Amino acid sequence: MTKKLVECIPNFSEGRDKEKLKLLEEEVAAVSGVTLLDVQADGNHNRSVFTFIGNPEGVLEAAFQLAKKAMEIIDLTCHQGEHPRMGAADVIPFVPIMNMDIKECVELSRCLGQRMWEELRIPSFLYEASATRPERQNLATVRKGEFEGMPEKLLLENWAPDFGERKIHPTAGITAIGARMPLIAFNVNLGTDDVAIAKAIAKAVRGSSGGFKHCKALGMMLEDRNIVQVSMNMVNYEGTPLYRVFEAIRFEAERWGVPIIGSEIVGLTPAKALVDAAEYYLKIENFDCHKQVLEYHLVAE
Amino acid sequence: MTKKLVECIPNFSEGRDKEKLKLLEEEVAAVSGVTLLDVQADGNHNRSVFTFIGNPEGVLEAAFQLAKKAMEIIDLTCHQGEHPRMGAADVIPFVPIMNMDIKECVELSRCLGQRMWEELRIPSFLYEASATRPERQNLATVRKGEFEGMPEKLLLENWAPDFGERKIHPTAGITAIGARMPLIAFNVNLGTDDVAIAKAIAKAVRGSSGGFKHCKALGMMLEDRNIVQVSMNMVNYEGTPLYRVFEAIRFEAERWGVPIIGSEIVGLTPAKALVDAAEYYLKIENFDCHKQVLEYHLVAE
Repeated sequence: MTKKLVECIPNFSEGRDKEKLKLLEEEVAAVSGVTLLDVQADGNHNRSVFTFIGNPEGVLEAAFQLAKKAMEIIDLTCHQGEHPRMGAADVIPFVPIMNMDIKECVELSRCLGQRMWEELRIPSFLYEASATRPERQNLATVRKGEFEGMPEKLLLENWAPDFGERKIHPTAGITAIGARMPLIAFNVNLGTDDVAIAKAIAKAVRGSSGGFKHCKALGMMLEDRNIVQVSMNMVNYEGTPLYRVFEAIRFEAERWGVPIIGSEIVGLTPAKALVDAAEYYLKIENFDCHKQVLEYHLVAE
Repeated sequence: MTKKLVECIPNFSEGRDKEKLKLLEEEVAAVSGVTLLDVQADGNHNRSVFTFIGNPEGVLEAAFQLAKKAMEIIDLTCHQGEHPRMGAADVIPFVPIMNMDIKECVELSRCLGQRMWEELRIPSFLYEASATRPERQNLATVRKGEFEGMPEKLLLENWAPDFGERKIHPTAGITAIGARMPLIAFNVNLGTDDVAIAKAIAKAVRGSSGGFKHCKALGMMLEDRNIVQVSMNMVNYEGTPLYRVFEAIRFEAERWGVPIIGSEIVGLTPAKALVDAAEYYLKIENFDCHKQVLEYHLVAE
């Protein structure tokens, strides 16, 4: 018996009022089968990021209840903060973690958009893997104009919401809902103080300049350690595995006689991203992660 | 919030009667928070091996109900089979999988032994990590004499049961209960048909002949592929990690100019054993598996 596990990382346009953040937290706690992992609030951005996981039904319910509560307590007509935003619940991505694929997360995003319109009268755009047009994949493009510019944008030919009418909710605005793969922050440290080498390697491995499609990379100096780092966001570890980029960095660095001296994963990762690396390095034949890894048989309630 | 996950792999002295095996399966299914992963029955051995996982309370309850049902339906006075045995529930090991350590499994084994004596009048020996004397660590030593020889053995000075009187249950005998680390069947294939090389490398890496403490290894021929294999049981992947033995096999094989061409994991493994390998090969610094691997935050009910 295998159970499905999905992650949701909604962003809200409130990062200052602790009472309001607590009300949002309580919405997640009230849904069974869902675990709140993290809440990051930023006062300057006036924005908070919630991370929770659970079974698909529970996560969908928690996401809806959060959007509803955000509508009740956040008023964008008097919202200020540095971060671009267009809704009380600004962005709601669903991420497949275990025994799920991206298509099932697209389905979750569509269910949520439908329900938010029907019950809350909040319209939404679908973005990333859920996008219904290529130009809506990119969140920045979708959010351009922000809350204040949305009434006008929604009237443009190509910018009807995916759910709802061409009119924002008066105080809660409009929400971007989507599905994406887990993002893994993976940094590789090099045994040199020459930042030009890190920048050259970052350029070689990132998709935008000809490298691996699902890898975003920058070269930077770590002043406190006097070494350089290739700092990466791995946005689809199945399409572009961590070990493959690691080995590419190794052979690129060899050209300058520079060794890899370490790496780091910042924040969370699915076990599968690391199990895939073990499978490569240990040359494991015919390994079936879903059958052979004990944790994949967990009863997630 | 982290939840604990434990595995239990009880062995029963019944491998032929499908009706009886079904009754045992139903006992596991009736306990919430526990998932039955596998049942292996062997008619020649007249023995079955159940594998289930769940939260500690659920797994303890399922193990007790299984021992009780086994007592009701298995009569060792008329049991025949090739495998050594001394009880209806013959061996019951508890194995820590996630957010648990071996000491908590020792505690589970003691609770079960106590309850089996109080409620079922079945005595038990504690073995492996639960053993109360060094000579009881080894299951074969504990089981020596089998069901027929136990009445006499229990009267020997050093062989009082850990729970119960010096007298077996008339039909259910006596049970070995213990705690151990997960066993990982890990085989490494070499690019040669010279079995002497596999045997020499097996000798180099196994604990019994001077190699790694928690590694058991044999060299053998894979006739169908015309290559040789170092076939291993890794009995404690924390003390002796898979990657360390893999790298030792690599450098030993290099002496003969022989490459590793693949490996296999037979059956189940905890994700941690593979995550540890990824951590080594990717040189990940300061990685905290329990905090950073998403699955470790699962709600296991």
